[in-house]
Formats: sequence, C-alpha cells, structure tokens
Amino acid sequence: MNPDIDSTFLSIRRDRLQAQLETRNVPALLLTNLTNIFYLTGFRGSAGVALVGPTRNVLWVDPRYTLQAREQAQGFEVREARGNLLKEAARWVQKKRFGRVGYEDSSLTFREFSLLKQEAGQKVRWAPAGGIVEDLRIVKDAEEIEWIRKACKLTVAVFEEVRSEIRPGMRERDLAAEIEYRMKRKGADGFAFETIVASGKRSAWPHAHPTSKSLEKRDLVIIDLGAILAGYAADMTRTLYLGTPGPRVRRLYAAVRDAQEKAVEASRAGRAACEVDRVARKLLESKKLESYFTHSTGHGVGLEIHEKPRLGRSDKTRLENGCVITVEPGVYLEGVGGVRVEDTVLVTAGAPEVLTPAAKELWVTG
Amino acid sequence: MNPDIDSTFLSIRRDRLQAQLETRNVPALLLTNLTNIFYLTGFRGSAGVALVGPTRNVLWVDPRYTLQAREQAQGFEVREARGNLLKEAARWVQKKRFGRVGYEDSSLTFREFSLLKQEAGQKVRWAPAGGIVEDLRIVKDAEEIEWIRKACKLTVAVFEEVRSEIRPGMRERDLAAEIEYRMKRKGADGFAFETIVASGKRSAWPHAHPTSKSLEKRDLVIIDLGAILAGYAADMTRTLYLGTPGPRVRRLYAAVRDAQEKAVEASRAGRAACEVDRVARKLLESKKLESYFTHSTGHGVGLEIHEKPRLGRSDKTRLENGCVITVEPGVYLEGVGGVRVEDTVLVTAGAPEVLTPAAKELWVTG
Repeated sequence: MNPDIDSTFLSIRRDRLQAQLETRNVPALLLTNLTNIFYLTGFRGSAGVALVGPTRNVLWVDPRYTLQAREQAQGFEVREARGNLLKEAARWVQKKRFGRVGYEDSSLTFREFSLLKQEAGQKVRWAPAGGIVEDLRIVKDAEEIEWIRKACKLTVAVFEEVRSEIRPGMRERDLAAEIEYRMKRKGADGFAFETIVASGKRSAWPHAHPTSKSLEKRDLVIIDLGAILAGYAADMTRTLYLGTPGPRVRRLYAAVRDAQEKAVEASRAGRAACEVDRVARKLLESKKLESYFTHSTGHGVGLEIHEKPRLGRSDKTRLENGCVITVEPGVYLEGVGGVRVEDTVLVTAGAPEVLTPAAKELWVTG
Repeated sequence: MNPDIDSTFLSIRRDRLQAQLETRNVPALLLTNLTNIFYLTGFRGSAGVALVGPTRNVLWVDPRYTLQAREQAQGFEVREARGNLLKEAARWVQKKRFGRVGYEDSSLTFREFSLLKQEAGQKVRWAPAGGIVEDLRIVKDAEEIEWIRKACKLTVAVFEEVRSEIRPGMRERDLAAEIEYRMKRKGADGFAFETIVASGKRSAWPHAHPTSKSLEKRDLVIIDLGAILAGYAADMTRTLYLGTPGPRVRRLYAAVRDAQEKAVEASRAGRAACEVDRVARKLLESKKLESYFTHSTGHGVGLEIHEKPRLGRSDKTRLENGCVITVEPGVYLEGVGGVRVEDTVLVTAGAPEVLTPAAKELWVTG
C-alpha cells in the first residue's frame, strides 16, 4: 500500500470517475497519462497503462515495476507485461468486448493511438475522453490539500531562510542550488520545476534558467520556487531588489503587488478563472503596464505544476471550494528587468486562503 | 545567440535533416517536440512550435519567450504568437501551400493533431514523420560529445566525493539531496532524473525513489545519478555494500560487473544494439541469474536520458562512431536486494570509451 495515500480517497476518486463514465456512456476507460494513473491507483512509475472497467480495474506494468506496483496500487489488479504495455492492454480490451472504450486523446500520441486501434481490432469503438480525469483533479480532496499545504509551507520556510542570506556577488545558479538543497533536506521529494533565479536584465525573461551571472547591486531578482511533497506541487514567486529602489522600481513593484493581491481576493468559489485574470489585468491597465504583462494570471496546481483551470482571458471554468490555483501577475521590461509576485491559493467556501504567505518586501540591502 | 551551441553544428544538424526530408519527399516538417526543437534551433523553452521548410525556417513562441527565442534561436525566424501556437503554425502552413507536411506523430497527441488538421484545412497532406530527428540524434556531433563528457566527469567527481562519506545511519533522501546539491554546485544545470538511492530490500526496486529509510549495515545500496550540462545528460550507477559482503553478495556483484564490462567491450561501431544486450544476458544466464535481470542492458543518452537505440532483445540499430549509450545490467532479488552497475559509454571507431570511469569497488566498511 502506498503510505502517502489513504485508500478511502482513492476509492472516492474512482467513484467520481465511474460516475463521469456513466454520464458519457463509456463503460471502460484506458488510462495512459501517468499522472492520472497515479491519481487513481496510487502507483507511481515511469511506465504503466491502466483500465477502469465496469467490473474490474487493471494496471499493466513492465517487470521493473511489478513489485512496486503491487505494493502501491489500490483497487487495481496488477499485471506484468513483458512486451509493449499498450499492446497487452489492447489485446485485453479486445477480449472483453466492452464495445466503447474511452482513451486519453489529450496525452496519447497519434502513433500510440494507431497502435492501440490496430491491436484491439475492428470491434472496439474508441471514444476520445482526454481531460476527464484532469477535470476531476481541478477540485482537490482533503488529502491532496494537506499535501499541497505542506509543500507550500516547506517552500515558504526555505525561501525565508535563504532570503536573509541573499547578497550581491552570489551567482544565480548557486542561489538556486541552495534553495533546492534546502527543500530536499526539509523533506521535499523534488521540485515542481527548475528553480528560477533571474537577476538584472535577465529578470525580464519570465522563465529564465539560472546562470553563472552574479547578483549585482541594483538588480531586480525574481525567485520562483516550489517543492513537491508526495507528488503535490507548491508554486511561489517573490521579487527582490538589491539596494534601495528608486521611484520607477517602486512603482512597478507596487503595481504588480497590488494586482496580485486584488486577484487573490477575487479568487472565490463561483467566479470564473477569466474573471480573476481580468482583475489583475485591469489593475495593471490602470497603471499603463498591461502591455508588459505577457502571460496569464495563473493556473491550477496539484500533481502537475500546470493544471486546469488557466487563469487567462478565455477560461470560463468556475472556481470551486477545493480548487488550488496560482495567482502570479508580472511585468517584464526589456533591458530593465521584471517583477512577479506569486502565491499558491486555496479557493474555499469563504475567503481565499494564501498557502504561501511569505513576506513581500521588495528590498534587500546587501 | 545561445552561448552553449556553436552555430556551425546547428547548421549541420539542419542540413542533415533537410537531406532526410528530401529522401522522404517531405518538403516541410512541423516540429512540436521541444527537445527536437532545441536540437535544431538552440531555443530552450517550455513551449514552442517550429517549421523546417524548403526556403525558410520558422519558430513560433508565446510572448513569454520572445526575447529569449530571439537570443537563442539560430537559423529560424522567430514569430510571436498571441494565441495557440499550433493554430498559428497551421494557418501559416495553409498559406504556404507546401503540399505535403511532415509532423511528429510520435510526440504530437491525438488531440493536437486533430486541431492541426482542422486549422490547416483540406489542402495540406500530413505525413507522419515522428522519429526523423530522434534518428539524427543517435549519432552525436563533437559538441554534443563534449557536453556529455563534461556532464559525466562532473557526475563521477560528485560520486567519488560522496562515496567516501557514506555511512550506515544516513537517510536515503539526504544522501540523494547531497549528491544533487554537489552536482549543482559543480555547475550542473540539472539532473537527468531523480537521483536514486535505494538500500536494503528497496534496492530490488530498479527505479525506487529515495525515502526516509536509513542506510543500515549489510545493506546493498544502489546509487544511480546523472548531471545535465547544457541540456546533455550523464547516467551512472554504482552499487555499494555496507560492511563486508558474504559469498552470495560477492557472487551477485561479480556476475553483474562481469556482464557489464563484457557488454561495454562489445559496444563497438557496427554491432547491433541487441547484440550488446545479448552479451550481458548470456553472461548472467551462465550464472543462472538471467531471470533476475528484468530490464534491458541500456539505452542511448543525450538531450534525453532515454534515447534511441534501446539495448534490448529486439533493437537491431547498428551502433556507430559517435553513439553514446548506457550499459547497465542489474539483478534484483525480492526480499534481498539488487545490484546494478552502469556506465555511459561513447562508441568510437576503435575501443569504446567509458565516460564515467568511477571505481567499482563493492564494499564500504562504515
């Protein structure tokens, strides 16, 4: 059994999925997305295919993972496949004569789907069902929220430790290494993404990799970090300034922080994802900064760092109690630098809960 | 310009691709695999679509990546797309009337392909061309070999430093964190995979995640690590024993090491990947251990940790001068533990070159 997951939650997840499958008249669903497989089975490996069927659930793994799958997976019969996992699953599906079988068209490659169709034969009707499990994952259960909360707490603790040690002369990459090391030492299983430390002009690249560049006085420094615990990600960004900021930097920072806080405040059950985005965008518009805000306001976060919904212009998904999202407006001025402030936020029945409540001071005098 | 890549190599890569496209009568190729896009353009982002055409090459990125792409990409015109990248590319393709356009069916999802077809309209004939770039990547150029060599050197240096500090009582996860921290401090851009430290019975799981379990006396400990430098991965495994091994452990270890060294010796230009696998398998068979060898002997390594060829039973790919592969037989006994020895190996015109020549002693008396 997977010690990280209470079997009750796994069984509720399977029930929610079964209900969805019934609504869509899909008696069986073939799962190939490994994150979805983990979500439903508890098995965490780099290869696997699962089937949720009307009477039984099967998980195919290769011999590397047999022992592990038998220990981790719950509610699924584990089958060891010596050959191609998809082929084995396809042949099993063929024998069972389910009629219609759902498949994850949003993650299965075109080539894999061709193989599946060929191996399962003419009689199976395949129904595109990609996104069903991802949609279930938008609302987190109590166990998931606990893991995200812990991952966020750990992330904040590391940031606050490291922040007081940041000085001009440190290299971006060393600071990133330090952050990642401390996350691991505090128990992180991994990092939600490669830690970003982008300083000076490089902070105008929203997703810059840390380099050998040293932090310098009067640099804006964007630090974007997130731990993973039991598969669940945290995501937080803070922007520092090395020195005493002048009026332009202060104005930029105040605008972004204000936009971020107003958007957090707007992250409530019943509001659409695009409405939260609009709140941040309007605020930056009022400061004539909208053209420097070159990405969306945020995204769902959970087993993946980018999940549904997308807090962008066009995503009308209604937020619900139990959604976990990031709220992260930013502005990026070529040749000058960037400012981004980001929190992971839990949508509740009442006020939104900021899961990454690290201080947001702008300046570090080093 | 991407300081990590000499533009000459990028242009040779594009030429090799063009030659392949001509052979297949595909005038243009739409690239969606980000690793392949990096390989051909030098641009490294988390989103992008590229097209290699008969007269010009285009790279579409979203506004987050415009500055970065203009700095990194060589030989490609960078276009900023405000909406869906695939849609923009599809519309461009429609206008150009190439006739036949290749697409990466091995990485494009079924859903993405459907979108592409719909947006580009009836007149474009799509030709599945997945794997073309991956096939080019099997043989590394001088620059790639240099990066892999450096990544391997760094990996060995960290392993040798850490090995002398391994003691019973250390937790698997702390040892893994230490290894990763030191890799970063020595300049690694990242890790080719989550560092594996699997001890005692857990070493019988070939791909176990490090846990809070402490290393204990008489544990077999599998350590599998690899740095990434400039995008290129190293991959190395050593197995230690905490104490003085008895005859059974010695026998297991000697068999695996022998199988590994014989397979390395067999990794020569002109031999098929499956022949190298057979060498390792035969040796373990002669010791009655073949049923515990539950994976293939190795794989290509480069921009991805698992590339072509696969050193397994059925891959007939001929090794060539410039191939970089791993050679990593292992045996796994449930309830006892596992032994794996792995090197990254460069296939040359002469004798194979082991790029990870760390010591292979079995025992650590702690």
